[in-house]
Amino acid sequence: MLTRWSERFAQRTHGMRSSAVRELLKLTEQPDIISFGGGLPAPEVFPVEKFRESCDKILREEGKKALQYSTTEGYRPLREMIARHAVRFGINIHPDNVLLTSGSQQALDLIGTVFINPGDHLLVERPTYLGALQAWRSYQAEYACVSMDDDGMLTDEVESQLRTGPKFIYALPNFQNPSGVTLSIARRRRLIALADHYGVPILEDDPYGQLRYEGEHLPSLVMLDDERAGANGAPYAGNVIYLSTFSKTLAPGIRLGWIIAPVEVIQRLVQAKQGADLHSSTFAQMVAYDVAKGGFLDQHVKVIRQIYSERRDAMLRALDTCFPDGVTWTRPKGGLFLWLRFPEDMDGADVLKAAVAQKVAFVPGQPFFPDGSGANTARLNFSYCTPDIIEEGIRRLGVVLKSLMKGARVAVGAREVHV
Amino acid sequence: MLTRWSERFAQRTHGMRSSAVRELLKLTEQPDIISFGGGLPAPEVFPVEKFRESCDKILREEGKKALQYSTTEGYRPLREMIARHAVRFGINIHPDNVLLTSGSQQALDLIGTVFINPGDHLLVERPTYLGALQAWRSYQAEYACVSMDDDGMLTDEVESQLRTGPKFIYALPNFQNPSGVTLSIARRRRLIALADHYGVPILEDDPYGQLRYEGEHLPSLVMLDDERAGANGAPYAGNVIYLSTFSKTLAPGIRLGWIIAPVEVIQRLVQAKQGADLHSSTFAQMVAYDVAKGGFLDQHVKVIRQIYSERRDAMLRALDTCFPDGVTWTRPKGGLFLWLRFPEDMDGADVLKAAVAQKVAFVPGQPFFPDGSGANTARLNFSYCTPDIIEEGIRRLGVVLKSLMKGARVAVGAREVHV
Repeated sequence: MLTRWSERFAQRTHGMRSSAVRELLKLTEQPDIISFGGGLPAPEVFPVEKFRESCDKILREEGKKALQYSTTEGYRPLREMIARHAVRFGINIHPDNVLLTSGSQQALDLIGTVFINPGDHLLVERPTYLGALQAWRSYQAEYACVSMDDDGMLTDEVESQLRTGPKFIYALPNFQNPSGVTLSIARRRRLIALADHYGVPILEDDPYGQLRYEGEHLPSLVMLDDERAGANGAPYAGNVIYLSTFSKTLAPGIRLGWIIAPVEVIQRLVQAKQGADLHSSTFAQMVAYDVAKGGFLDQHVKVIRQIYSERRDAMLRALDTCFPDGVTWTRPKGGLFLWLRFPEDMDGADVLKAAVAQKVAFVPGQPFFPDGSGANTARLNFSYCTPDIIEEGIRRLGVVLKSLMKGARVAVGAREVHV
Repeated sequence: MLTRWSERFAQRTHGMRSSAVRELLKLTEQPDIISFGGGLPAPEVFPVEKFRESCDKILREEGKKALQYSTTEGYRPLREMIARHAVRFGINIHPDNVLLTSGSQQALDLIGTVFINPGDHLLVERPTYLGALQAWRSYQAEYACVSMDDDGMLTDEVESQLRTGPKFIYALPNFQNPSGVTLSIARRRRLIALADHYGVPILEDDPYGQLRYEGEHLPSLVMLDDERAGANGAPYAGNVIYLSTFSKTLAPGIRLGWIIAPVEVIQRLVQAKQGADLHSSTFAQMVAYDVAKGGFLDQHVKVIRQIYSERRDAMLRALDTCFPDGVTWTRPKGGLFLWLRFPEDMDGADVLKAAVAQKVAFVPGQPFFPDGSGANTARLNFSYCTPDIIEEGIRRLGVVLKSLMKGARVAVGAREVHV
């Protein structure tokens, strides 16, 4: 039935589709399926008891304030805590450089509102984060893509693309969603230098930076840019906007992320946020602050690292054991995901279909490619399932892949006979 | 300092200004000022203890679920509760017709994403809700305005405006923000008939419908449209999209509102919300459901009505006593606001300036007029302050007005001498 409303959908939202990932999340709500889809943190690591204590305390002591409207910028003590944390990591900012958002997703959307005109092209990694593509679809963004290897974006490709005048560079330097790849320190410095040379700003999306399981922490792009500009004495250079979130370190269900940006950009983002949702939950912000403070968050992140690194190891071991030749994967040093590459002629969507029949699921890679390539890729999440479930799921996926690859060869063989 | 980012603001957001109301809210955070600005519920009515019990229960019993990601559409039991409530009020819907949003503000923003193309013109009341104008600014909406009297929109004006082909009609039929005016039943029926005749859908915004202090509840536009279409046997006609919120009945700090719309519209709004913030807080939705269920919300709304009607009465009494001739005001039957009209030559912004010097604040009316008229108007909120504070604030405002009006007459007199 076409109602009068549905006759009036805006032109730019025609062709909008529900995200493959979200739809898959629904499918994988069936309790008997092993899901490597989604990007869900392990619920076992949520500090539920700590949240319970903080909710109780906040409502007892400051209940009226917690349930009331509050400022768009966010709860001041939380902004101060985020600023202190950033300073600890070498980013020279002030609480006024911080805007609290309703999850990192809203940060991406506000960036779209404030910066993207229809037809603007953005420089992104190939593959890149699906949620950003979704957020920017209604702003009619276009994309220039840069290929990646195990050290992240190929900076030689970046240089040729920068000559075409993109609006900004969107980068996920740590344990990228979806590929699990980390941008090397040499490439980070080169990216910063190139961006500076061509006058193109960078949007750095860092949801997983705290979740490193091996190797040394690498400086963020915002920190490196600050360092480079520091010679001029500027307190915060402001050519890199930095995004992060509490979704992977505290809990995603409270929907809290943040943006670090120059003050005049924060002011514009605040205006956009006023129109978008007035402010993020006062209660959630006060509770998140109470949970995180006094060093709890740092301690808790150590617990998460321990658990997720065991799961990553379990998945890598199972892949080594169970997967057929011809399928390759990344070996992420942190984060929540690794990335599969099937043989060229194999489609991730076909693999998913066969896998779901064996009660195991993942996300096919193509939606992460704005240029429509990447059909033979897939993303696996290793944070959600326990190690034994991971082993069983990868075993099943291995059987599915072997069967498909054998079938493919047989089919090819059969065609060869007919040709 | 213009950073590389601030050189790149999107064209459509140039000229975006921080809302007068939000900025005023900051000003009125000074503890010694009596504020009739903002639209704050009375914190005394927040069911803090009930929230504390529900948070405790949810985190004990379903903590992992409450802190995890969830579906974009919203927590199913809450959607079911909202649908049941709507059915009780004669709106024939299903839970699939309900989308939970991060406050009503997000509902307005999502409507903008899905329906408004640049240059579309919308039919609005004059004055209309400032938050809607803010939400739709970045979609480059234009406006056709319809005047109001004590019975709401002048439907004769509506008819001539409908011939110009607006995208939709935006109406706040109950105790409108900012005017406090309620659309009469006769005009409701006429509006529905006109909208049907000209094929223009209606967006009904109803944050205050439950907060009526005198007279009979009037049927909502969505219900009347349903009734009219019911002859054709359709379950939910779908020509009216209906918005409401928990901000005025439970608490604004949890940021929860909802949209009732045809299923295919909900699906499109869901896609937009995926890009905007993925989903509203799982925890907030589960807690709101637990607080509201079992008849608590209905009982609680009775308490709010009692308290707010006393405050409205206190304000009306004080206005009758303290305000000079030449200033008029509406006498709202519910909601949170009443509306002042100063003499034609008086500017609300000037009155505010003089009032703030006397430690009392309100919102000048002009920002509520998309056509820039209304300089001699103002909005007063009566929900936030206690009756004795209201009396003192109105007394002070009366003194300010008398002084300004006397000054104006003297000034006019003086000019007359010089001319």
